[in-house]
Amino acid sequence: MRILIIHGPNLNLLGKRDKSIYGKFILDEINNMIQMKANSLNMEVEIVQSNCEGEIIDILHKTLNGGYDGVIINPGGYTHYSISIRDAIEVLDIPVIEVHISNIYKREEFRKKSVIAPVCMGQITGFGLNSYLLALEVFNYMRENN
Amino acid sequence: MRILIIHGPNLNLLGKRDKSIYGKFILDEINNMIQMKANSLNMEVEIVQSNCEGEIIDILHKTLNGGYDGVIINPGGYTHYSISIRDAIEVLDIPVIEVHISNIYKREEFRKKSVIAPVCMGQITGFGLNSYLLALEVFNYMRENN
Amino acid sequence: MRILIIHGPNLNLLGKRDKSIYGKFILDEINNMIQMKANSLNMEVEIVQSNCEGEIIDILHKTLNGGYDGVIINPGGYTHYSISIRDAIEVLDIPVIEVHISNIYKREEFRKKSVIAPVCMGQITGFGLNSYLLALEVFNYMRENN
Amino acid sequence: MRILIIHGPNLNLLGKRDKSIYGKFILDEINNMIQMKANSLNMEVEIVQSNCEGEIIDILHKTLNGGYDGVIINPGGYTHYSISIRDAIEVLDIPVIEVHISNIYKREEFRKKSVIAPVCMGQITGFGLNSYLLALEVFNYMRENN
Amino acid sequence: MRILIIHGPNLNLLGKRDKSIYGKFILDEINNMIQMKANSLNMEVEIVQSNCEGEIIDILHKTLNGGYDGVIINPGGYTHYSISIRDAIEVLDIPVIEVHISNIYKREEFRKKSVIAPVCMGQITGFGLNSYLLALEVFNYMRENN
Amino acid sequence: MRILIIHGPNLNLLGKRDKSIYGKFILDEINNMIQMKANSLNMEVEIVQSNCEGEIIDILHKTLNGGYDGVIINPGGYTHYSISIRDAIEVLDIPVIEVHISNIYKREEFRKKSVIAPVCMGQITGFGLNSYLLALEVFNYMRENN
Amino acid sequence: MRILIIHGPNLNLLGKRDKSIYGKFILDEINNMIQMKANSLNMEVEIVQSNCEGEIIDILHKTLNGGYDGVIINPGGYTHYSISIRDAIEVLDIPVIEVHISNIYKREEFRKKSVIAPVCMGQITGFGLNSYLLALEVFNYMRENN
Amino acid sequence: MRILIIHGPNLNLLGKRDKSIYGKFILDEINNMIQMKANSLNMEVEIVQSNCEGEIIDILHKTLNGGYDGVIINPGGYTHYSISIRDAIEVLDIPVIEVHISNIYKREEFRKKSVIAPVCMGQITGFGLNSYLLALEVFNYMRENN
Amino acid sequence: MRILIIHGPNLNLLGKRDKSIYGKFILDEINNMIQMKANSLNMEVEIVQSNCEGEIIDILHKTLNGGYDGVIINPGGYTHYSISIRDAIEVLDIPVIEVHISNIYKREEFRKKSVIAPVCMGQITGFGLNSYLLALEVFNYMRENN
Amino acid sequence: MRILIIHGPNLNLLGKRDKSIYGKFILDEINNMIQMKANSLNMEVEIVQSNCEGEIIDILHKTLNGGYDGVIINPGGYTHYSISIRDAIEVLDIPVIEVHISNIYKREEFRKKSVIAPVCMGQITGFGLNSYLLALEVFNYMRENN
Amino acid sequence: MRILIIHGPNLNLLGKRDKSIYGKFILDEINNMIQMKANSLNMEVEIVQSNCEGEIIDILHKTLNGGYDGVIINPGGYTHYSISIRDAIEVLDIPVIEVHISNIYKREEFRKKSVIAPVCMGQITGFGLNSYLLALEVFNYMRENN
Amino acid sequence: MRILIIHGPNLNLLGKRDKSIYGKFILDEINNMIQMKANSLNMEVEIVQSNCEGEIIDILHKTLNGGYDGVIINPGGYTHYSISIRDAIEVLDIPVIEVHISNIYKREEFRKKSVIAPVCMGQITGFGLNSYLLALEVFNYMRENN
Repeated sequence: MRILIIHGPNLNLLGKRDKSIYGKFILDEINNMIQMKANSLNMEVEIVQSNCEGEIIDILHKTLNGGYDGVIINPGGYTHYSISIRDAIEVLDIPVIEVHISNIYKREEFRKKSVIAPVCMGQITGFGLNSYLLALEVFNYMRENN
Repeated sequence: MRILIIHGPNLNLLGKRDKSIYGKFILDEINNMIQMKANSLNMEVEIVQSNCEGEIIDILHKTLNGGYDGVIINPGGYTHYSISIRDAIEVLDIPVIEVHISNIYKREEFRKKSVIAPVCMGQITGFGLNSYLLALEVFNYMRENN
Repeated sequence: MRILIIHGPNLNLLGKRDKSIYGKFILDEINNMIQMKANSLNMEVEIVQSNCEGEIIDILHKTLNGGYDGVIINPGGYTHYSISIRDAIEVLDIPVIEVHISNIYKREEFRKKSVIAPVCMGQITGFGLNSYLLALEVFNYMRENN
Repeated sequence: MRILIIHGPNLNLLGKRDKSIYGKFILDEINNMIQMKANSLNMEVEIVQSNCEGEIIDILHKTLNGGYDGVIINPGGYTHYSISIRDAIEVLDIPVIEVHISNIYKREEFRKKSVIAPVCMGQITGFGLNSYLLALEVFNYMRENN
Repeated sequence: MRILIIHGPNLNLLGKRDKSIYGKFILDEINNMIQMKANSLNMEVEIVQSNCEGEIIDILHKTLNGGYDGVIINPGGYTHYSISIRDAIEVLDIPVIEVHISNIYKREEFRKKSVIAPVCMGQITGFGLNSYLLALEVFNYMRENN
Repeated sequence: MRILIIHGPNLNLLGKRDKSIYGKFILDEINNMIQMKANSLNMEVEIVQSNCEGEIIDILHKTLNGGYDGVIINPGGYTHYSISIRDAIEVLDIPVIEVHISNIYKREEFRKKSVIAPVCMGQITGFGLNSYLLALEVFNYMRENN
Repeated sequence: MRILIIHGPNLNLLGKRDKSIYGKFILDEINNMIQMKANSLNMEVEIVQSNCEGEIIDILHKTLNGGYDGVIINPGGYTHYSISIRDAIEVLDIPVIEVHISNIYKREEFRKKSVIAPVCMGQITGFGLNSYLLALEVFNYMRENN
Repeated sequence: MRILIIHGPNLNLLGKRDKSIYGKFILDEINNMIQMKANSLNMEVEIVQSNCEGEIIDILHKTLNGGYDGVIINPGGYTHYSISIRDAIEVLDIPVIEVHISNIYKREEFRKKSVIAPVCMGQITGFGLNSYLLALEVFNYMRENN
Repeated sequence: MRILIIHGPNLNLLGKRDKSIYGKFILDEINNMIQMKANSLNMEVEIVQSNCEGEIIDILHKTLNGGYDGVIINPGGYTHYSISIRDAIEVLDIPVIEVHISNIYKREEFRKKSVIAPVCMGQITGFGLNSYLLALEVFNYMRENN
Repeated sequence: MRILIIHGPNLNLLGKRDKSIYGKFILDEINNMIQMKANSLNMEVEIVQSNCEGEIIDILHKTLNGGYDGVIINPGGYTHYSISIRDAIEVLDIPVIEVHISNIYKREEFRKKSVIAPVCMGQITGFGLNSYLLALEVFNYMRENN
Repeated sequence: MRILIIHGPNLNLLGKRDKSIYGKFILDEINNMIQMKANSLNMEVEIVQSNCEGEIIDILHKTLNGGYDGVIINPGGYTHYSISIRDAIEVLDIPVIEVHISNIYKREEFRKKSVIAPVCMGQITGFGLNSYLLALEVFNYMRENN
Repeated sequence: MRILIIHGPNLNLLGKRDKSIYGKFILDEINNMIQMKANSLNMEVEIVQSNCEGEIIDILHKTLNGGYDGVIINPGGYTHYSISIRDAIEVLDIPVIEVHISNIYKREEFRKKSVIAPVCMGQITGFGLNSYLLALEVFNYMRENN
């Protein structure tokens, strides 16, 4: 089972951004922990980060060539307005899970609306690094039930 | 570790309600699977279901007497307007996770707003029965990290 | 043919509430007239009143055990916000008719929106006690056309 | 007892318009059934159809010359914006009932607001052809209670 | 100087409609008084009434053939939504004055917006029959100042 | 007959402000013309101008001591938000007419709402200096009809 | 003089909920102080608390049987959406005062709207426990003025 | 191939209305050019103009008797509110194309919403007379692809 | 203990304004009763009235020079828009109580929003003259609890 | 005549995205048909596709160096929020036509607003691949009329 | 070069108001620093402060008598609603710069809208005392470029 | 002192875009003048321009490696929706100033909202090229005050 993980804009700065909201880990540490979890679940993960909307769309499209069983995406700030990323997700033929490190419903009003969520399988928000690990668990459950 | 799980209104009808949205399992089956997962994680769970807003508030208050390490709540229809349940959760001194079986962001406009989410640790939505299991995993991760 | 009639919150006070809006009859008189109409149409009716949202949901669920051919509900104040009652109605496998004694469209702005109506077969509003009798007629027409 | 029945715009096409919403009967069949019901209730009905807002206003005004005991109107698309028809109804000295074949609260957002309803005695919506028959029943009840 | 006066929908019923709002005069009496005022100001007036939006547009267009120095229009219920009448007025090459018998700003919320006013020279509202007479005065002032 | 005329904020600058909107006359010239019109109608007018909301309220209150038969007010910018001036007008026992030199419905969106109009007898807007003269005419008509 | 005091949802937790907002007293202490104040004013009070909307409605209805001169209600979270409690209050024939411990206008946007206030005699908000005592004073003033 | 072309309200005045927006041609010239284009595409066109909403609905209904392969409609001012015309179009069994001479998205805010567009095959807006010719091309393409 | 009482715009007219809303007392009588209450509570009060926003701000600022223990303000019409008075209150170092004679939540929609309340200790609304007396009681309670 | 054609985000996936909305052709086939049409009209076309907002802006800017007579753009998801693309178009000195394959007015609410349309010459929406061909026709008509 | 500087309501309290927002300087110190800056730029400044909307309008009007080359205004709380001050600024024939000490876009929602900004040359917000000094620089730049 | 200056989308076209709004200078001239000002203030500036949201985020992140004392950003069209750029700015540990050449509050409604401003130190808008120079002055003042 092969999962693509996409970190959206500003997530390269994790550990530098407000720690009370985003936690203390830097992105490399988080990626290591994701990797370890994937290993323990006998999954392969490919992890990318991009600040560029167009690049994220390109990355999503790449999965149409096969080789991936699911996508985990943290769309960062694009969550709230990028209809283009939404359209890219809608085209895919594998399930996509939206994750957020912070609980976006606890923050500014404008962060409470995700234009991405309606085209994803589901959303996991507010559990820090664990949000990613839970998404991996979802794919694991799906595999087990097939 | 002891977790209280609250199924809100109409969840007693699972398996009878639109199966394309809510899945095929009836509540007892789901509760069995939650129980099994809890066992595997070495947790104790107490599961209640209520259609009554006031009763759900009473149940939440009960945890203030101690004996619980966390709450998993699926507030059903109350998700979208029950400021009273929100207030009850805000008082608690243990973490609360909001779960939904269906992806509420894929449905009617009015289901996209949760008045509960801003006072929970996080929200897991859209993974069917797995939404509950993932919430149990969150409590497991938290235990492991302490 | 067996019909369940549910009077929502504050309808136990009919005859005491603003008579220019709700008419002069008390609930017992109205129930008698409903009973007489049902008799004349060769129907059985079961009439309940509750001020409690959760109880109304429980009552609605009861029809899933069979024995009823339709529901007539006057959701009172819950008309305008109880997504939980709406969800309960949506699950049922028999037709539900929403009735109102007063013309809710002639009153305060907030009374003009029913969250219940979209999941009912239809709505009858503004004919006083007759709103209930007309709903019985609907079920009669349906029986005749089968 | 003499009742004026007004079918608004596009109702001349009944039976041709989306049958899952508007039913299978063509307008003539519906008019026949209304006529039969009226006969059975010992009422006279006059039935008109118009696609023109101004014409509908003229028809409503005509009742001011006497000879009618009530009006049943299905304002079709005008339901949602014709303040001019609303004003015409407000002037009348006989009761007016608004009817709809489909349940307008189950459809597009813009169909949920009736500018006509606040000046009618009541509204009956969602019962197909029966909506008209029920309105006749209302006038019958009123006659009986006088 | 020749002025066209257009009474919009339902104004044929003046004197019958709520007298506390619209006054006691019937349309013929009002037209007589307008006529008398016009005579005293040495003006000719042509007075028409129509309930039909399309007809009102046709009447407005007629002035493009010349022979009129101004238009006084009471658009009745069309005031609040007829963009088509607005468009017709915008084309004209003579000044148009919008008048209302009642003070539309004292009434229902939806009557406070005129889609017509932005394309008129001005608006006179709330002075009963006098609203028309004042509009005639405006044209008189304009003539005197040329 | 004695009329109080109140020019609101910035009207002391008439003739300096955008002439395409407000015309070419300075306030003194306008006041002279109002005076002449009043004379011709056999009325007395008292004219004041103030930029200060509180002062305008004081002036309005003064009429409660008697000696005035009506008020003409151009509330300028206060038209759109001064609930305090609105409250002051509502108390008065003589009729108040709101006038505007420009057609406020042709301008910025925020100028289309008058919080003053609902408590006045009527509103005259868009006729330049003539708006004031027409308001005097209204008082003349009222006197004639008594 | 006999006053019914109703504490709404979550008020049983006073002293446990955010103390900077709700103060340090637990409900029993507050009830004692209310009792003492009532004694000093020569009043009888009956105090109830409920988390259940339907129960609160039942309690309000009870006063229709006589024996009470007024109601003091802190509707808690129901303040902002319970049209059913509003309807129950509207029916009563004794005055009802809405009180809040915290200043609801200083808090989240959604707490600034009370659907209850329009059917109460008045509202007292923001004075902690004193809000209840002041409401008792109101009833005292009313008694003195009769 | 036979196409019905409907010019809505005020389009009879083309060439007289603001030329910077609507161009210099009068309706007859435009109709001639449409005719020529139709000839060159080997189509028959029938062209009507009406200012009356009800008449436009009647015209649309006429196509249900067969003989037409498509409709091109410029609904003029009705574009923005005529749900009745929308309903008439929705019934038809041939494709309908909405055209506008001016770019309605460049103009007043209220012109940016078409209630007609959602029931048409497509919309062509902003190309002057060419908007009609392009719509003819669409029907030509469709014919070629069958 | 020394309290400053500020009556806002139009309150000088109490007893003249709509008595069903504002009661029968004139301002002097009310001030006398406030004075008597203050005496009985062993407080000193200074009472001012102003119709001018800027003057009210000046008065509020004066308390910064010391000598006052609290402010009671009825901001009248300024309640709903005077951010400047709000800002003045926010600066003060003594508690401010907002009072209203009428229940502002029972009246026009625009009176339901107070821009002042969020910067006050609390709000008392709807108890007529008693609203002021209750505010004095609040200061008395505060003194007793220190 | 040389035309630049810009396909926005996700249009590289045509033929893969929901075929009932976007048709069966893949982008290369569409580009071929555009090319053929251009040839038949004796035009040159340059076709680019990009998922990146910044890149699309760069491409638009390139036309300022001359060599192009017009632009056809399908802004995809950017249609609804990219004020930056809008600004880029506004600068250009050649006409720009906005095209859409699907009828955006038939889809989700958020797709009904184009921030691009107000700065384009016109918009063509809903005709599948033909939308592009029609835009080429527009440029052809413009050339013929010069 | 002579510049008029207007400090709006509550700015006389600078140094007393929330220092984390408005800084530590009192108004006299700020005025001294403005004076020094003006001297260094070889400008004359006249500085006034007023809490009264009407007075601020009077002060603005004064510049029409000449003698000033520009105005710097900090409208304080009036920023958000004083259309009357806006109108006064719009009349002036010298440039006006709006300044704010705090960053108004970082604060309450209602502070994010300035009704003044659209009629000023520009706005400088968030730089404490420096906001004034920067505005002086603007006038200096303008002088240098002439 | 080293300042990073970021010109957002379309600013590479300065001098080509509407000159009445954006002035006559091309970007290179503006950059020269910024450079000269910086020299005169003894500052170093690095100036970049990008049309790409992702690239602007990357550039902002670069400052986290040190070497910069402040950022001046003109976010162009991204001002109004790029929550991703906002998030990037929020992370930085040096002050950021938002500048605009035109007065964005004088233009289209949608340009009046900056999602960037709440995370900047302040905003300077409307002074053409000088907006940048003033921002440099701010950094100079800050340096002087340390």
